[in-house]
Amino acid sequence: MADTRFFDNAGPLSLVRVAEIVGGKASGGAADAQVSDVAALDTAGPGQLSYCESAKFKAALERTRASVVLVAEVLAASVPQDAVAVVCAHPALGFAKVATALYPNAGLIWPHSKPPVHAIAPSARVGEGSVLAPGVFVGEGVEIGDDCVVGPGSVIGRGVRIGHKAMIGPHVSISHALIGDRCTIHAGTRIGQDGFGFVGGAWGHFKIPQLGRVIIQDDVEIGANTAIDRGALGDTVIGEGTKIDNLVQIGHNTRVGRRAIIVSQVGISGSCEIGDHAVLGGQVGVADHLKIGAGAFVAAKAGVTGSLDGGQVYGGFPAKPVGQWRREMGALALLVKNRRKKDERDGS
Amino acid sequence: MADTRFFDNAGPLSLVRVAEIVGGKASGGAADAQVSDVAALDTAGPGQLSYCESAKFKAALERTRASVVLVAEVLAASVPQDAVAVVCAHPALGFAKVATALYPNAGLIWPHSKPPVHAIAPSARVGEGSVLAPGVFVGEGVEIGDDCVVGPGSVIGRGVRIGHKAMIGPHVSISHALIGDRCTIHAGTRIGQDGFGFVGGAWGHFKIPQLGRVIIQDDVEIGANTAIDRGALGDTVIGEGTKIDNLVQIGHNTRVGRRAIIVSQVGISGSCEIGDHAVLGGQVGVADHLKIGAGAFVAAKAGVTGSLDGGQVYGGFPAKPVGQWRREMGALALLVKNRRKKDERDGS
Amino acid sequence: MADTRFFDNAGPLSLVRVAEIVGGKASGGAADAQVSDVAALDTAGPGQLSYCESAKFKAALERTRASVVLVAEVLAASVPQDAVAVVCAHPALGFAKVATALYPNAGLIWPHSKPPVHAIAPSARVGEGSVLAPGVFVGEGVEIGDDCVVGPGSVIGRGVRIGHKAMIGPHVSISHALIGDRCTIHAGTRIGQDGFGFVGGAWGHFKIPQLGRVIIQDDVEIGANTAIDRGALGDTVIGEGTKIDNLVQIGHNTRVGRRAIIVSQVGISGSCEIGDHAVLGGQVGVADHLKIGAGAFVAAKAGVTGSLDGGQVYGGFPAKPVGQWRREMGALALLVKNRRKKDERDGS
Repeated sequence: MADTRFFDNAGPLSLVRVAEIVGGKASGGAADAQVSDVAALDTAGPGQLSYCESAKFKAALERTRASVVLVAEVLAASVPQDAVAVVCAHPALGFAKVATALYPNAGLIWPHSKPPVHAIAPSARVGEGSVLAPGVFVGEGVEIGDDCVVGPGSVIGRGVRIGHKAMIGPHVSISHALIGDRCTIHAGTRIGQDGFGFVGGAWGHFKIPQLGRVIIQDDVEIGANTAIDRGALGDTVIGEGTKIDNLVQIGHNTRVGRRAIIVSQVGISGSCEIGDHAVLGGQVGVADHLKIGAGAFVAAKAGVTGSLDGGQVYGGFPAKPVGQWRREMGALALLVKNRRKKDERDGS
Repeated sequence: MADTRFFDNAGPLSLVRVAEIVGGKASGGAADAQVSDVAALDTAGPGQLSYCESAKFKAALERTRASVVLVAEVLAASVPQDAVAVVCAHPALGFAKVATALYPNAGLIWPHSKPPVHAIAPSARVGEGSVLAPGVFVGEGVEIGDDCVVGPGSVIGRGVRIGHKAMIGPHVSISHALIGDRCTIHAGTRIGQDGFGFVGGAWGHFKIPQLGRVIIQDDVEIGANTAIDRGALGDTVIGEGTKIDNLVQIGHNTRVGRRAIIVSQVGISGSCEIGDHAVLGGQVGVADHLKIGAGAFVAAKAGVTGSLDGGQVYGGFPAKPVGQWRREMGALALLVKNRRKKDERDGS
Repeated sequence: MADTRFFDNAGPLSLVRVAEIVGGKASGGAADAQVSDVAALDTAGPGQLSYCESAKFKAALERTRASVVLVAEVLAASVPQDAVAVVCAHPALGFAKVATALYPNAGLIWPHSKPPVHAIAPSARVGEGSVLAPGVFVGEGVEIGDDCVVGPGSVIGRGVRIGHKAMIGPHVSISHALIGDRCTIHAGTRIGQDGFGFVGGAWGHFKIPQLGRVIIQDDVEIGANTAIDRGALGDTVIGEGTKIDNLVQIGHNTRVGRRAIIVSQVGISGSCEIGDHAVLGGQVGVADHLKIGAGAFVAAKAGVTGSLDGGQVYGGFPAKPVGQWRREMGALALLVKNRRKKDERDGS
C-alpha cells in the first residue's frame, strides 16, 4: 500500500464501483471481492487490483495474485481462476482511474490535508539545535532531526522525514520523501513532486497517480534548481554519498547507487538504474528503463540510448565506448578531408 | 495594444518626442501624427509606429498601414505616402526605445504598480473553495476561479487570470498570463517573465520590451522549475491538454498545439509552432522560428535545426527521420570497423 | 584571504593542529609556523597553506611561497626550504579539511551567522527609492543601492552588495556576491551557492570548501531559474552588459566577458573563460577549463570539448568550425545514400 504518511487510502471499492469507474464487466473470481489497493501484476496480492493491456505481459498475467485484473477482452482467458477479470476497453486508463479513486489526494500539488492555518503544523516535530528560517512551511506529521537548517521560504510537505544535520537551502520544496542524515539540498530544488506519467488516448492524457516516494540516503548533496520526481508505484532512490549538481532532472522510479556523481543539467528518465560510483558528466541524457553499471563514466553531453556495462568510459550520441566514438569522429573528419583532396585533384 | 491588465500605456507620444527618442528626422505623412502604440509592419494600423531596418522587408514596408515608420535612409522612399517616415541610424533600436517610452512598466521584474502593502491585493478576486496557502502574493486585479489551490510562497502578478480547479505548487511565479481551467503547475515554475530579446550594437544589448502574454489553455500540466516566457508583441500559447515536464524552456511567441507532450529539459526557442499531439523527448532542442507538424515524434536529445513534417519520427543532431539517423550512425560504425580490418590486413 | 563579508576565518591553526587534521607529519621550515589561510601553490604567501598531490605540479611546488605545504612523500624533497612540508597520504583531502577548519561557515547553505530573528537584518542598508516586497529576507551587512526592486520571497544573504537600479524577481536567492548597477535577475535564479567540488576517494566525496564569490558587473541580465555557483578559491565573474537566459548553469571560477550572450539551458563548466561578445546558443555545453575567444559564435546544442579561437562560428558535437561540421554531416548522409544505391544495383 502507498505510504500512509503521504497518501490517504479511500478504499475499499466494491466490484460494482470498480466496474463503473472503468466502464467494464466483471466475471470469475469472488463476486464479493473488494479492491483496497493497486499494484503491478507481479507484485499484486489479495485485495489489490492490477491490469494487463498487452499480450506481451501474458506470462505475468497468468501468474498474478491480484484479486481483480483489468484486461482487454482478448486476454480475459489468461486471468487466473481465483481472480476477478474486469474486461474493459482501456485497462491502463481504468487502472489510473481506480488508483485515483483509491488515492484521491495523490494528485494534490501541495500535500496538506486541510487549509493550512499554521505555517508550522502543530504535529510536526523538529529536533534539538535545528533552525527553521522565517517563512518556512512544515506540514502535518513532519519529522526533522537534530542540528538541521532549513532556509527561508522552504516548504516541507506532510509526513516528510529528514534526518540529523541536514542543510536545506532557501525556496526548496520537499514532499513524499524520506531523507537521511547529513544531506545538503541547495536552493530551489524540488523533491517528491509527482512524475510525468499519463495514459494517452482519444481522451487526451490521463494522469497516472504517482503513489511512490523519494528516498534520499545519508550524505547526499543535491545542487540548486534540481528536480527529483517521486515514484509511480515504487520509489525513486538516491544512494548514500551520491552528489548531484544543479539543474538535474531525475525521473520517477529511477534508482541511483552509492557515491555516484551526477553533474549539472543531466537528465535521467524514469525507471533507470545508475550503479555505485558511476559518473555522469554535464548534460548527459539517459533514456528510460536503462541500466548503467557500477563505476561507469559517461562523458559530458552523451546521449545514453541503451544500457551500459560498468567500469568503462563512454561518450557521444548515441553513447558508446569513448574510444570508439573518437575513432568515428576521426573517420568522419578524414572522409571530408579525403573528399576535398580528391575534388582538388579532379580540378573541381 | 498591449493588454492593459498587464501593461500601462503612457502614450500618445508626439512626432517631436519620437524623433527625439530615436535621434531621427521626420518627413512626409501627417505632421501632427501621434504615436500611441507599436506594432510589426504587417499588423500596424493608425496611431501605431513600426520600423524597417532591412531591404528584406521592403514589400511589407510598402504595404504597412502604420502611421509612423522608423527607417534607414535608403528605405525612406519605400514608406507609404500617408505615413510619417522617421529616418534614423538604427530603426530596430529606435523601435525598442519608443516601445519602452510607451510602456514604461514593461520591464518591471515584478508587475506591481505600487509598493505592495498587501500580500493579497484588495482588488483581487478569489473564487469559492479556493485555498491560498500562507505566504502567497496576489497582485492587483488578479482573478482566480473556484476550487483552486495555490501553494506556499507563490506569486501571482497583477492582472493574471486563472480558471477553475487550478493546482499551483509552492514557489511558482506567474505574470502577464491567462490560465484556463484544471491546469496544474508544479513547484518553482516561472510563467510570463519577459523573453530574451535585445537589439545588439555598439551600445551593447538594448532590451526589447516584451509586450505579449502567456496563454495557457485548459487541462495543461506543467512540471517543476520550468520557464515559459511571455511574447514580445504577440503571445506565447500552450494548447489544451498539453503536458510539459520539469526544467523545460519555452521561448517567447512560441505556440504549442493541443495535447502535445514535452519531456524534461526540452528547450524550444522563440516563435516556433509545435503541432497538436507532437511529442518532444527529453533534452530535445528546437531552433527559433521552426514548425514541427502535428503528431511528429522527436526522439530524446535531438537537435531540430529545420522545420519537420507531422506524423513522422525524428532523431539525431541535426534531427532527421529516425531511420536515416540510425543508418548514418551504422554507416559510421562500419566505416571505422572496415578501416580497422584494412589496417590489420595491411599489417599496420 | 576569503572575503570576510561572507566567510569567518577561524584561524590561525598551529602546525600541530594541521598535522592532526590531515593525519600527517611536519618537517622543515619554521617549527612555530601558523596557518591562517589556504591558497593555490602559485598564489600562496606567508601564513598560507597549499598542497601538491601530483608530480605534474612539481615546478609550481618548487616556487611556492606558502608557509606550509601538504605533500605526498615522494614530493617532499621539492618543498622549498623555508616552507614546512607536511607529508600525508592524501594532500588534496588534507587541504579541503584544513580549509574547512579555517572557514567553518563556508559550508552553510544559508549564510546567516545566527538564527535569524529579523527577516531584514538591522545591519542591512537599503538605498533611497528601493522597494523590498513582502517576504524578502536580507542578511547581516547587506548593502542595496538606490531605486532597486526585490521581488516577493527573495533571499539576499549576509554581506551581499547590490548596486543601484537593480531589479530582482521573486524567489531569487543570492549569497557571496557583489552585484553592479542596473542588473536584472529574474525569478528563481540562484547566485552564489557553493560549487560542485569534491575530493573523491575511499572516504567518499569530501566537499572542498568554496571560498570565492560571484562578481556580476553592471548592466547584466540573468533569466529565470538559472544557477551561477561561486568560486572555489577565486571568483566567478559575469562581465558588464552580458545577457544570460533561463535555466543556464555557470560553474565555479568561470569568467564570462563583457556583452556576451548566453542562451537558455547552456551549461558552462568550472574555470572556463568566455570572451567578450561571445554568443553561446541554446543548450550549448562547455567542458571545464576551456577558453572561448572574443566574438566566437557557438551554434545551439554544440558540445565544446576544446578551446575555441575568437571571431569564428562553431557547431556540432564535438564543436568545430560550423562549415566543417556541415560538411561532415553532408558526407555522412552521402555515404548512406551511396551505399543504398550500391545495394540497389547489387540487387540486394
